[in-house]
Amino acid sequence: MNTPNAYAAGCASRIVLDRVADKWTVLVLGILVQRPTRFNQLRREIEGLSQKVLSQTLKNLERDGLVVRKAFPTVPVTVEYSVTPLGETLASKMGALLEWAEANAGQIVEAQARYDAADNATV
Amino acid sequence: MNTPNAYAAGCASRIVLDRVADKWTVLVLGILVQRPTRFNQLRREIEGLSQKVLSQTLKNLERDGLVVRKAFPTVPVTVEYSVTPLGETLASKMGALLEWAEANAGQIVEAQARYDAADNATV
Repeated sequence: MNTPNAYAAGCASRIVLDRVADKWTVLVLGILVQRPTRFNQLRREIEGLSQKVLSQTLKNLERDGLVVRKAFPTVPVTVEYSVTPLGETLASKMGALLEWAEANAGQIVEAQARYDAADNATV
Repeated sequence: MNTPNAYAAGCASRIVLDRVADKWTVLVLGILVQRPTRFNQLRREIEGLSQKVLSQTLKNLERDGLVVRKAFPTVPVTVEYSVTPLGETLASKMGALLEWAEANAGQIVEAQARYDAADNATV
């Protein structure tokens, strides 16, 4: 494998970046890194996330080796998701991004208002 | 303002997260944090990024107060983009994500191959 370079379109790290630079991935991993969680609990905790998108997000994360799906033989079956050690390393980077978003949301909203009030109103 | 919570759909930090959790934003800021850069140079350095998407990405970043656009009175006009102090703090979080993607791309590709070889081939 060549040196990974996310700036090259065909590089695996670009595909990885595409996957991980995703709002839902950040939010799902942010919960799973705290504790194993069931599907419906994830849905409840993340507002605006549809069943379909959550399902696809979890499947992608499982395929990437970042999340493990575990089924318990209850009636009905209970399915729980948790992070792998690799997923945990990603979650810590993402946690920093999430904290940044929460800490700086106010400043960004203000900047947007200034920009919009100036001549260059967005389309 | 209430305590920012990106898990709530209407919270400003969710909007911020949506913006910053974006592949192109990560790649553009990753260059600008190293040095002020012209539009065409950014296009050349980031494979697969169209003029239209780069233009929109930069406009969003400028509106968010993360990037500054500076025009020089040359013929033709030269336009250079650079990060603001706020953008610099975001770029450092994103740099960590970019490094993670580059460092772990191999492991993820292997995990995907294992997943696809198993029963649960993706659709």
